[in-house]
Amino acid sequence: MEKGLLEGVIVLDLGRVLACPYCGMLLADMGATVIKVENPKGGDDTRKMGPFINDNSVYFANFNRSKLGVSLNLKDPKAKELFLDMVKKADVVIENYRPGTMEKLGLGYETLREVNPGIIYGSVSGFGHTGPLSRRAGYDIVGQAMGGLMSTTGWPDGPATRSGTPLGDVLGGLNLAVGVLAALVNKQRTGLGEKVDVALVDSVASAMENITMIYQATGRVPQRIGNRYESTYPYDSFPALDGDVIVAAGNNKLFGILCDVMGKPELKTDPRFAEVKDRVANHEQVRELVSAWTKSHTIEEVDRLLNSAGCPASPVNTIDRMVKDPQIAGARGMFPEIDQPGIGKLAVTATAQKLTRTKSCPRKPAPGLGEDNERIYGQWLGRSEEELKELKACGAI
Amino acid sequence: MEKGLLEGVIVLDLGRVLACPYCGMLLADMGATVIKVENPKGGDDTRKMGPFINDNSVYFANFNRSKLGVSLNLKDPKAKELFLDMVKKADVVIENYRPGTMEKLGLGYETLREVNPGIIYGSVSGFGHTGPLSRRAGYDIVGQAMGGLMSTTGWPDGPATRSGTPLGDVLGGLNLAVGVLAALVNKQRTGLGEKVDVALVDSVASAMENITMIYQATGRVPQRIGNRYESTYPYDSFPALDGDVIVAAGNNKLFGILCDVMGKPELKTDPRFAEVKDRVANHEQVRELVSAWTKSHTIEEVDRLLNSAGCPASPVNTIDRMVKDPQIAGARGMFPEIDQPGIGKLAVTATAQKLTRTKSCPRKPAPGLGEDNERIYGQWLGRSEEELKELKACGAI
Repeated sequence: MEKGLLEGVIVLDLGRVLACPYCGMLLADMGATVIKVENPKGGDDTRKMGPFINDNSVYFANFNRSKLGVSLNLKDPKAKELFLDMVKKADVVIENYRPGTMEKLGLGYETLREVNPGIIYGSVSGFGHTGPLSRRAGYDIVGQAMGGLMSTTGWPDGPATRSGTPLGDVLGGLNLAVGVLAALVNKQRTGLGEKVDVALVDSVASAMENITMIYQATGRVPQRIGNRYESTYPYDSFPALDGDVIVAAGNNKLFGILCDVMGKPELKTDPRFAEVKDRVANHEQVRELVSAWTKSHTIEEVDRLLNSAGCPASPVNTIDRMVKDPQIAGARGMFPEIDQPGIGKLAVTATAQKLTRTKSCPRKPAPGLGEDNERIYGQWLGRSEEELKELKACGAI
Repeated sequence: MEKGLLEGVIVLDLGRVLACPYCGMLLADMGATVIKVENPKGGDDTRKMGPFINDNSVYFANFNRSKLGVSLNLKDPKAKELFLDMVKKADVVIENYRPGTMEKLGLGYETLREVNPGIIYGSVSGFGHTGPLSRRAGYDIVGQAMGGLMSTTGWPDGPATRSGTPLGDVLGGLNLAVGVLAALVNKQRTGLGEKVDVALVDSVASAMENITMIYQATGRVPQRIGNRYESTYPYDSFPALDGDVIVAAGNNKLFGILCDVMGKPELKTDPRFAEVKDRVANHEQVRELVSAWTKSHTIEEVDRLLNSAGCPASPVNTIDRMVKDPQIAGARGMFPEIDQPGIGKLAVTATAQKLTRTKSCPRKPAPGLGEDNERIYGQWLGRSEEELKELKACGAI
């Protein structure tokens, strides 16, 4: 097994579907012992979500590789005992129940802190644990809509548009990981735990960066502007002979290179395009000039001519091209294979942390429902075979 | 000053523009001592990017609050000495130079590790430090395009569309923070450092989640599908009397609630809509049924009727509504004020980590260029006033 940065860190992952399991996956790929806790009646919803291979969910397999798995009915008093016994020995609990649910189960942060003052409690929910909308269920699309992302994605004459992947969930999972890891850094120094409360809506809002600052500074409400950016130009998609191509000449130096490659060095000293702010103000004129050039070249030509001169350009990759890209799939190893029982060899998606001394990588396939009950409840917590049989018979595990 | 989880952690932030400064901001808001290192000739590019208040960049202020600031010309031999002296005393160096640049300066990871074996070196770049495209400059839009996000964002009859905020950069910054913090956890146990190499393209690819799994499992290339999702339905935007509204009934229970609220309980047992996969397959029929109902209500009515019954729904917030939202701005405090010299009171965007024992929050305004030279080079490194004058005179600082 490759060494991992988080070896020795024990995480109880109560997550369902995406945001919380994504966080658990990040920690597990870096070597934490992540124990996925699922209800015994069917487990995580994503076990029933496609795509499927041989009736096994590939969705579930991707987000839960590298984890151990136990079944536990948190409404059962004996199951609660088991859970609290795990909390005593764990460093981190992460969950994405609706706020109030863990308290209703008698397993809120205050209770867990009593049994383990060093516990780090990480929660990701739609709206967070405070405020008038806290108790509302919140999902990815609600995060993208309420957080402002949809209103600024799309075209001036078109509808508000969501991003093509559940970025609310992904941003929530990443922000939860950031908070939990910072709390681990602190716990190792102080022995004290922390509650990390992350909302999908906040995570999207915090990703809106300069878009929000434009409103705060000027009172102007940023609108949908297609593929260009508010702060710099030309930094957009342009039509090539055989499809769309990106040209990203975001500062004076890169704009100079672009002008030279286009054979229009005189544009560099044109006062309409002198500084970034001038090119943003006159973006329609810049767009015409650049398009006139890209239209007479293929994607490959634009990509090669600009990049070899030092100006960023790239194709717009479809998913089939992306997963076969020599850089992304090849050199960066972003699609490693796991051997998933019931599925066979399956290419999952790696995390973005490429390390030198240690590795972030899939460490085992995703667990079957309750696969590690004996290992965790028996060997780790010391419950007897007889006790486990009883717990199973009464539906606690 | 509020306590922070990362108090005592020293970070040298060589970042420019967005991805790396965003990571530095996350660490600084949680209490790390983050020293922003800028070239003495103008500093970070974003100092010249809008929006501006009194000629001061609000873009720069937002991403660099909570940090100290020094000026340093890394091409100058005396400046390199200063830098290596800081590296000796620091825990973390983060940078987003083009791969190879730090090595060319004689300040690559191997060199830094020689002066401080425990140093954590975090890099975020367009394509990462390995592979055929490594040396290419890469920017947000290239990440969104190459990583597959643009090809799946937008409408079936429309063009590939970027997300309305630089999500490639934000995802890169978050992934860098995750890697750096995991390395800090490990360093505290082992004394050893790590190199964390994050690419914008990989960060987007790793966020594509089930979209990529659909291709891996079935060979089908996911296309732009507007605001619905591949894995569940109805989970989409719908037309209300006065604009668009989100309805997110992603599982059987929530679909049941929606049917009841619409006054169509018979749909719950309709075999066309029995399971998630049936509703995904027949999403056009579901859309017609739900639209017929939403069209006869206002956004506020749909929001209230569904949420009070337990089914997620929300408005699509524009930026002006988002920054005044009682939940986001009020209860969650996502837009705290700093007092920025040259600007005055300025509402910046908070991070998404809401903590209990400690705080993640802006700790000071963004630094002027070289503002903390005397504090860092003089008091911390022990350079004399005379030496500092010479360093300034020769352009090293």
